Order: sequence, then structure tokens, then C-alpha cells
Amino acid sequence: MTTDPLVVFTPSGKRGNFPVGTPVLTVARQLGVDLDSVCGGRGICSKCQITPSYGEFPKHGVTVTDDALSEWNKVEQRYKDKRGLTAGRRLGCQATVQGDVVIDVPPESQVHRQVVRKRAEARDIEMNPSTRLFYVEVEQPDMHKPSGDMERLLEALEVQWSLQNVKADFEILRSVQPILRKGGWKVTVAVHLGDEVQPPKIMHVWPGFYEGSIYGLAVDLGSTTIAAHLCDLQSGEVVASSGIMNPQIRFGEDLMSRVSYSMMNKGGDQEMTRAVREGMNALFVQVASEAGIDKALIVDAVFVCNPVMHHLFLGIDPFELGQAPFALATSNALAVQATDLDLEIHPAARVYLLPCIAGHVGADAAAVALSEAPNKSKDLVLVVDVGTNAEILLGNTDKVLACSSPTGPAFEGAQISSGQRAAPGAIERIEIDPVTKDPRFQVIGSDMWSDEAGFADVIAVTGVTGICGSGIIEAIAEMRLAGLLDASGLIGSSEQTGTPRCIADGRTNSYVIWDGTPDGGPLITVTNPDIRAIQMAKAALYSGARLLMDKFGVDTVDRVVLAGAFGAHISAKHAMVLGMIPDCPLANVTSAGNAAGTGARIALLNTKSRVEIEETVRQIEKIETAVEPRFQEHFVNASAIPNAIEPFPILSTLVTLPNVNFNTGSDDSGGRRRRRRG
Amino acid sequence: MTTDPLVVFTPSGKRGNFPVGTPVLTVARQLGVDLDSVCGGRGICSKCQITPSYGEFPKHGVTVTDDALSEWNKVEQRYKDKRGLTAGRRLGCQATVQGDVVIDVPPESQVHRQVVRKRAEARDIEMNPSTRLFYVEVEQPDMHKPSGDMERLLEALEVQWSLQNVKADFEILRSVQPILRKGGWKVTVAVHLGDEVQPPKIMHVWPGFYEGSIYGLAVDLGSTTIAAHLCDLQSGEVVASSGIMNPQIRFGEDLMSRVSYSMMNKGGDQEMTRAVREGMNALFVQVASEAGIDKALIVDAVFVCNPVMHHLFLGIDPFELGQAPFALATSNALAVQATDLDLEIHPAARVYLLPCIAGHVGADAAAVALSEAPNKSKDLVLVVDVGTNAEILLGNTDKVLACSSPTGPAFEGAQISSGQRAAPGAIERIEIDPVTKDPRFQVIGSDMWSDEAGFADVIAVTGVTGICGSGIIEAIAEMRLAGLLDASGLIGSSEQTGTPRCIADGRTNSYVIWDGTPDGGPLITVTNPDIRAIQMAKAALYSGARLLMDKFGVDTVDRVVLAGAFGAHISAKHAMVLGMIPDCPLANVTSAGNAAGTGARIALLNTKSRVEIEETVRQIEKIETAVEPRFQEHFVNASAIPNAIEPFPILSTLVTLPNVNFNTGSDDSGGRRRRRRG
Repeated sequence: MTTDPLVVFTPSGKRGNFPVGTPVLTVARQLGVDLDSVCGGRGICSKCQITPSYGEFPKHGVTVTDDALSEWNKVEQRYKDKRGLTAGRRLGCQATVQGDVVIDVPPESQVHRQVVRKRAEARDIEMNPSTRLFYVEVEQPDMHKPSGDMERLLEALEVQWSLQNVKADFEILRSVQPILRKGGWKVTVAVHLGDEVQPPKIMHVWPGFYEGSIYGLAVDLGSTTIAAHLCDLQSGEVVASSGIMNPQIRFGEDLMSRVSYSMMNKGGDQEMTRAVREGMNALFVQVASEAGIDKALIVDAVFVCNPVMHHLFLGIDPFELGQAPFALATSNALAVQATDLDLEIHPAARVYLLPCIAGHVGADAAAVALSEAPNKSKDLVLVVDVGTNAEILLGNTDKVLACSSPTGPAFEGAQISSGQRAAPGAIERIEIDPVTKDPRFQVIGSDMWSDEAGFADVIAVTGVTGICGSGIIEAIAEMRLAGLLDASGLIGSSEQTGTPRCIADGRTNSYVIWDGTPDGGPLITVTNPDIRAIQMAKAALYSGARLLMDKFGVDTVDRVVLAGAFGAHISAKHAMVLGMIPDCPLANVTSAGNAAGTGARIALLNTKSRVEIEETVRQIEKIETAVEPRFQEHFVNASAIPNAIEPFPILSTLVTLPNVNFNTGSDDSGGRRRRRRG
Repeated sequence: MTTDPLVVFTPSGKRGNFPVGTPVLTVARQLGVDLDSVCGGRGICSKCQITPSYGEFPKHGVTVTDDALSEWNKVEQRYKDKRGLTAGRRLGCQATVQGDVVIDVPPESQVHRQVVRKRAEARDIEMNPSTRLFYVEVEQPDMHKPSGDMERLLEALEVQWSLQNVKADFEILRSVQPILRKGGWKVTVAVHLGDEVQPPKIMHVWPGFYEGSIYGLAVDLGSTTIAAHLCDLQSGEVVASSGIMNPQIRFGEDLMSRVSYSMMNKGGDQEMTRAVREGMNALFVQVASEAGIDKALIVDAVFVCNPVMHHLFLGIDPFELGQAPFALATSNALAVQATDLDLEIHPAARVYLLPCIAGHVGADAAAVALSEAPNKSKDLVLVVDVGTNAEILLGNTDKVLACSSPTGPAFEGAQISSGQRAAPGAIERIEIDPVTKDPRFQVIGSDMWSDEAGFADVIAVTGVTGICGSGIIEAIAEMRLAGLLDASGLIGSSEQTGTPRCIADGRTNSYVIWDGTPDGGPLITVTNPDIRAIQMAKAALYSGARLLMDKFGVDTVDRVVLAGAFGAHISAKHAMVLGMIPDCPLANVTSAGNAAGTGARIALLNTKSRVEIEETVRQIEKIETAVEPRFQEHFVNASAIPNAIEPFPILSTLVTLPNVNFNTGSDDSGGRRRRRRG
């Protein structure tokens, strides 16, 4: 019937017939094809670049001749001459349809492009930023039709971009008149597209066509460190990442000591609020400078943090979080102004905080849930974010449960005699020969094992300074595998184990990993108190997970995802030997890296994901471990290595745990402790 | 069929049958009867007081027996004993229906009560304040159902008051936890009910039942004076009114000199913004102190002002308003935060500015339109707000036209040789005997005429100090009626008029009203330059009105409303003799007092009226007098007294204007001037 040319878009597959002479951008808009444009088809922004394909396309039933698109017009030619265009590319707003054609929209020309994540199992991020740029031509004032300059700007946004009910940030009112005149009534407008609560809002106006971009921050506000990722809100790229220590550390290393500080010191909460906000601003200067951009171009920011940090950052006294029933002042997601939090970015910038799941399970856990999406997993997945507190999620498409468990800082190398933060020289990998009972290890900064030739050169540079969190896990698991440590957590004596590396150390024994004393270095041992600290931490972690499994009505999980910096370095096998995590095929234990930070980035780049995670969090079932009777029982069982009761059938196919017992009835360690807690 | 008792409410007439034992408040809610309650039926607030009527009610077909309502229960009795209740009153939430009953809801128990306005033709104000108080009982935190305290407060508002999607002001988050605990989980909440742009928002939370009220400000921000009315947002009463001089006067008496100041002085606009905001804050302290309330209880404020004041108050450089095409930065109504404007009232307080009609016709004119509602008038009404600029509205239910006209300050007594502000001692009323050509007058501060016995005692107190704005109108009109002044605006010589009161004064003549010099007082005359200043002012006013009549396609209007302080004192007859206003029955010329201030008060007390006036303003047709060719023609004609061309048929039935002409061909006043402008 119709003789109009057929236009087929890839990758969407959308197609339709359009009259000869229709610009490709117009065709795309009418078909609902995702083709970007900031200048609205004026050949200025080049965001609508497309790639026409020529030849035979049996799949689409089309033959595309060389003249399927119009000749280059002046605007397009001028753009190419001045700015350059990749070979094969055309400007979608200038090239018009002349015959049947197949048109590819490259990712960078899609508004809702996918930002690819590195891990195979992770979903890509679809771009849906809060704020976008729009170029408009504004009607000039007319005495006979009096209306404000702002109203004509809003009308231009409505007519030229179908943006309705847009409001202007108050500060914009003060500057709009000179900017409109400077731009000759042509301006580029940054519009926050609004959300359920707020209408769309003009954030910034530039005279003429603004060539730059606008930026957003994804911030993981941890108790110890604050990490910020600066993202380009048009491309989705991370343009700079930076981190600082949380300046609140001077008020207390861990969360509860900060809550205590605010209880003991009048105005202490406000001091801590000031400290974290000042630190935040310093970090923003740093990350913007690293990216070489003006921080006033940062128009959006997403924060994730645990409940105590959440309250202190918002300026809320965390008093109630320090005692049962751990009442949050507010648990919902929050959309506030950057100025409410004294953040020195764009004066109209918005700030979004993910919802808190419960008094102990914060917006950071919500961010992990957003990143790892247990609610979208067909498999039953256990997600563990290991830090001073472990946040634990268990679920699948049916339901998701959450809890937190106070693991303490042992996993981070604190409370460990030779423990240290992960830094060059720290032992991070270790193997113990089950026959000779001798260890070999790697230190951070080198891939060489300590029994390899040339290791002396390595340590000449870094030294061997201590054991980091993942190192201590491996050391203890290897000690258990080598028969140096019994299930109750006692290190054998040199007599019991047959190695001089087991040395008496007070009333208990220690195992010598490295004796650096001849060269003035440290004697690096694993002591029985070290074992007990890790036992407590891993028992807390495991019993939280086990409690969720009880509530879910299962005894096994399909997958385990370890989130957090610590989770990134941990060995699945060793964690399982220790009984930190439930028995599970090793291949199904993966690391998600900084999943909380990734969750913040997703929420920043895709505002739809904010609505999604708010809904997910509402549906997550929260379990308070502190008042669950079975938690204590699980904890006692999990104090054993790997566990006093639970079988680890998959693990037992991989390793054999020596059946040793070093309890001579005279020691005062593990056994009595456990009885006391039981 | 039903044997349930019949309940009839007055004045609404709503009725229905309800089971014995139903509380009256419940009945009222189910019938949609407007019965107030802050405590939600807990017998605390007494806002739901009702008056049962007993006996025969043939009109309603009901006989009400003495036991139609329940006996006083403990709660009701305790309230009465402790706080007292007017005789015949019951608490609607405690008294239950026992038999057929007629129940009157007194005005003070209605949320949407009518605030009665004094003038017969003015519509009453229906109460619909932005912010209301709600008492709620909040669920306590529960570890097993973790949710924020704020979320449970919001839930209480939803369940107990059907308030949905309420958000909390950011500052509230910081204080909600201790307040909930202090109130034992019972709190009173001030909720801003939201508007098209903003969702409902918690403004303040008090522990327990808050017995006080909340307040709003209606502010008329004039070039010369700023007047604030402090209103109780529950009762609608004006609890205090106060005014100050606009501190911007030091930068220029009139608007254009302030615009010039900002053009000539870098940062001058910001200086003026600071000045007016500081003045505003001083005024708020004053008015709150007068009412004896804490100004932090002021949660809403409405401002009306002309466009230049509007921009300067908002912190926008008024530069563009000083030159064609008089582009406003923004013309729409604005809802901003008090903190945006540095106003020191409640930190979460909202501020509403009425829309501007055009670059010369401001939010003050919109407020006049709201107060006088020409768009709801069946008669064709001309509304004139007389100040340094006259804002003129002409319309009826069909359409409304608006313009402004630069009358200058002559009507306020400026530029007049003996002119002064309205103050004791100023001549405000004057009559000239057409035979003797002698005047008699009244001064402000006394009702006695100057030819009455005892006037000497009056002026011993006040003196005779000058002529105020309304006095000069009467003086000139009387001079015209007495044949002392010709239609062109020339005062006759003593020879021409036959009275020694006409004295030579340079090349023209003056008329002596009062010679106070023997007692060291002033010689009060009307000079020919005085006449010319008033001619210019009244011609500007009339020609604006006439232009609107042209545009409307009419030669007469049905009614004239004079707004503004000046309009309140002007004599309709004299204004018409002068040709200030169109010919019209004198009884149909009324004064509206400070209609702009009243408009602000309406917008404050009834948020529905905000939507209404925004819609009205959109539909008002704006006429820019400066570029209308006929304006000049009308101006020239209107320079004559009353008019060179237009007949004043109604006026001519009331007065006879002597046909005199004092132009001897040698003077340089009125005639030549008019030719120059023509």
C-alpha cells in the first residue's frame, strides 16, 4: 500500500514507514527509539549520531542503497568539518530518509544506554539520571503579552521538550534574566526530572549551547572510610574515585563508641555531624579536582551508610540506636537538598539517601540489595557484607530476609596480635604443609611465595609486617587443616603437634608464621586469643546467616556472595573451613567487591532503581538477631571450627579435617568460654 | 423502616439516621458536616463543641426530647469542670445520639468557618488555611517490626486523620525522637496540607496536646509603607496589625528611582533586598510582640507588592523593569521557603507571593482582584487602586482587563505646594461657596467645619498645617464648581473671579484657603502648578480607565471601586467633577480600603483562593498603556477638568460646571503644555 521508505533501527528492531525527507531523529522519536539529543535537532550537540548500514539485509527484508539517506547538508557538513565525526556516522537530526534504510543507534547515542558492569553475574546499569540537559530557544518578551522570562523559558521546555510542570530552583530566578539575554534567548538548561515527591526543577541555566557535562556523586559513607565515585550523568562513566578516612574516627573507632560519645558529651552528636560533613566536602574537592571539573557541576548525590552514620550525617542524635528497641528516627529513603547537609556542591543539588532496612541494617545494606538483587535471583542467594558489622541478606524471587550481626573488627585485622590493615608487607595468602607443619605465604605487593627463590628481594622492599584480615582467615583455616588447631579452637603444643613452630605463650600456645627478629623485624604468630577473636567474629556471622536460613526454612543455600573490600580478598575454601559461611559449592561463592558503593552508583545513574529499592526494602523481612533465642544456640555451635553440629558435606568432599583435640582439661580458653555463653 | 434516631445539623441542614450511642462527631464526619477537631475525638481540644436544640422542630419534622443526647460522661464532665463550657454546649466527640436530635454547629466549631468582612458588598472569607493542627497517638517502636519513628508518626496521621503522602520538613527529623518520648507517644502536629507543587508537610511537632494556635502573616509590601496583619490560622482573626516605613526609601522615594539606584550602583539591588528583608523582620518582631506570641509560631505568610518591590524582595535585580518591554523575571505565583528570603519566622514556614499581572501590574493588583473579584461581578466594575502608580481593573463575569498608569505622587500630597501626608491638622474636606467664593474646611482630627464656632479651639490643638491628598482633590473640584478654575486648569485672577482670595503668583494665580501667617502659621493656597500636577495625575488615571473601557467596548461602567488608603478618603462627587473617574451614579462609587492587604489576607486564610486568583490572573487581559496610541489622546482630553471631550451626563444632573475661561492668551501654563504632549 504505502510506498514510503521503511526505516529499521538496530539494536531495538523498531521499524516503520516514513515519508521521504523525514529526519532520522524525528523517525526515532515517533517510533520511541532511544536516540539522545540535547540541542533538540539543531545540529549543535551531535548527541544523535547514528550509523546507517548499506547493502542487503535479508533478516529485515530490506536492501539499502547508497542514497538511502540525504546528502550532507550545510549544518551537518559544518559540524563534521569543525568537530569531526567518526567514519560512517551521521547526525540523526540532519540526515533525512530517502529510501529504505537500516540505522544503528550506537550506545553513546542512547539516553538510556547500559553501563556495563564487569562481573558476569551482575546486571548492567540502565541510564536514567535525575538530571538532563536541554537546549531551548526562548520567546522574547512582548509588552502586549506580558509574562515573566521564567514563564517563557518554562514554556520553551514544555513546547520543545514536552517537559511539563517544571519549577525553577529559587536561585535560578535571580540569574535567569541576564543569562537569557547573554545567550541571545538560546540557553541550555539542566532539569532535574522530578520524582514522586518533587516536580521537575530547573537546576541551572547556561547561555547558549553548553558543551560540558553534569555530574553526580555516589558516596559510600563507612564508619572507617568514605569513598566517593564521581559519575558523568550523561555517559554514566565514573570520571574519578577518591576516598578519605572518616574524620569521626577521632570520636571512636567503632559505631557504638561514637553513640557513646554522643551520650556522654553534650553536643557530641553535632560535633560528629560537623566532622563528617566537613570531611565530605574535603573529599568532594579532592574528587572534583582529580576529574578536573568544577564541583558546582555536581547536581546530584547518593549516599549509602549504616544507620548510625546515616543519623549522624543527617544531624540526628543516634542516641536511640544505642539501645533497644534501636528506633530509627526515619527509615524511609530521603530526598533532601545538598544545602540541608551543608554540602558544597551545586547550590540546588539534590541528595538521595537509600532507605534503612532496620535499626541495625542500614542504607548500605539496602545498596547491597540493589546491587546484588537477591529479590531477582532464582537461586537462593546469601549475600554477606563483611565489616565491623556484617549485614546479611538471604533470599530469592519469593522473599528476602535481612539481619545484621556484630562481628567486631577482628576480620579487619584489629584485635589480632599480628593483625594489620591490608597494606604492602601484610601476609594475605598462606598455606601450611600438613606434613611438615611449615607455612609458606605471600605478602601484599608481590605474587611470590615465601618459599620461592627471590622472596628475600621482595621483603627487602616491603618487609613482612603482619597479617591482614584475609590472611588471618587463611592462617587459621590452614592451621585447622594441618592439625595444628582443634575444632574447639585450641592450638596444640609443640609436643601435641610435633612442630617447634607451636610455642607456649602464657597458658596457651601460639603458632609461629614468620620470625623476622633476626633482622629486627616482628615475630609473627597466631595466638590462641587471635583464634578466639576470629571464632567470635565468624560465629556471629555464621549464626546470623543460619538464623535467616531457619526463618526461610532451608538448611542449604545455592550461592554465597561476599561483599565489601574484605569479601573481595577472602578465599572461599578457607572461609568455609572456618565455618564462616554455610556449606556450598566453592564455585558458587563469589565476591561482589564494594557492592554498597555499586548500589549507590546504580541509584545515582538510574532514578527508577530508587523506587525499585524502596519497594524491595519495604518487602524485606527484618530479623533482629539480638532477641532471637536460636541465635545464641547457633552462635555456640558456630564457635567450633567449622561447627559443632552442622555438617559441611560439600566441604568434606574437598578437605579432610583432622580429628584432633588439644583440650587437656587445664586450659581456661575456648571450652569454658563457650560454656559461659551457652 | 429504620428506627435509628434522626440527626439534623444546622446550619448545613445535613441529616441522617444513626444508631443509638454514635458520638455526634462521628455522625458529623459521616454526613460531611464541617465540625472541627484537633484531638481526634479524645475530649481534649473542645474544638468540636456543638449546641443541641430541644423541643418541636416542625421545619425538620423532629421532636427533640431532653434525653436526645447521652448523659455527660467523665471525660466531658472533667473538661467542663476544668475548662468550662458555654451553657448549652456539649463536646461533640463525647455526647452520643440517644434519640432524634437537632444539632447546631456554631461558627467557631467549623473548620471552614466564614470570616465576615465589614463591607456589605464584600464576600466573606472561607477558612481554608495552609496549615492545621492534628493530635495523634503514635505506635511505639518494635524491634520485630523495625520502622522509623517518623514513619510511625506519618502512619498515625494517615490512619487517624486520613492525611496521605505527608513528608516531614528536614528539621523535624532532628527533633522528632525526643519529642515523641517526651509526649509519651502523643503529639500535636502542625501539617501544611500541601498544594499543587508540594506534598503535605509536617511543620512542627509538640509533645502532648498543644493548646496554643499557629499564625500566618498577610503583608502588603508597598513602595512607601509595609503593613503586616498577623492572623490566627485556626480562627481567622487578625490578632495584630502593624506597619513600618519601607527602609528602601533611603535609596529612592519612588520605584523608578530605586530601579535607577540599582542600575547606577553595583550591588545596589542587593543592598535594597537586604534593607527590605531586614525591615520585614523588624516588622515581624513588632507585630508578634503586639500580639504577645512567639514569632516562631508564624508558619505561613502571603506577600503582595508591585513588580519592582516583588523583584527586590526576592533578590532579583529589577533592571529589566526599568525599560521596555518591562520583562518580569517571573510572573507566576511563587511558593518559597521563608528561609529563602531570610525571614525569621518558623524555620519551615512557607511564603506565598501572588502572581504579577504584567511588568507594571503587580501582585498587589492581583490581590485587589482577589479581594474585589471583578471577575465575579455581574455589573461592569472599574476597580482603581490609587497610589504612586494606579492599578486599574475593569471587568465583569465575561472578562477582566487590567493596566497600570503612572499617576505620580501628587495624589499623596507630594508635588503640591501646601501638600502633606494625611495627619492631624491637614485639610481633608473643603467646600467653596459659589457666591462668596469663600472656603470652609475640616482638618484631620476634628469633625468641626472651619466656619463653626469653636474651630479656633480645634486648631489650637492641631493647627492648620497643609492639605492632604483627598483635600486637594476636593479643593480643586470645589474651585472648578465655584468658577475659580476653568476647564483647561487655569485659576482666574481676582479680577476674573471677583474674589481677593485669588492672588497673583508669578505668571499665574493661586487661591488662598487659609492664611495662618498672622499666628505664625502657613499660608495655604492652591497654586496653578498644584492644579497642573493633579491634572497630570488624574488624566493618567482616567485615560488608563478609558483605555480599558475602549478595549471592553463600552462608554460607561456600572460601578467604581476605589481601593487603597487614598481611595478610602476621597469624595466620589469631587473625584468625578475632577474627571478622575468615569461618569457613574455616585452611590455606585465605593471605597474598598486596603484591598491589596485584604487580598493578601484572603490568600493567607483560604489556600483555595490562591489557585483561584492564579487562574483569574491568567485570564486577565493585560493592556500596556505606554504603547497604546489612544492612551495619549485620552490623556490630552482628560487633562481638561473634567474632560475636553467626554460628557459626564450623570454628573451634570448633580452639579453645574461654570463655563469660564481664564486663558488670556499670555499665560504659559495648561494650554501650551497640552499642545506639546498632543
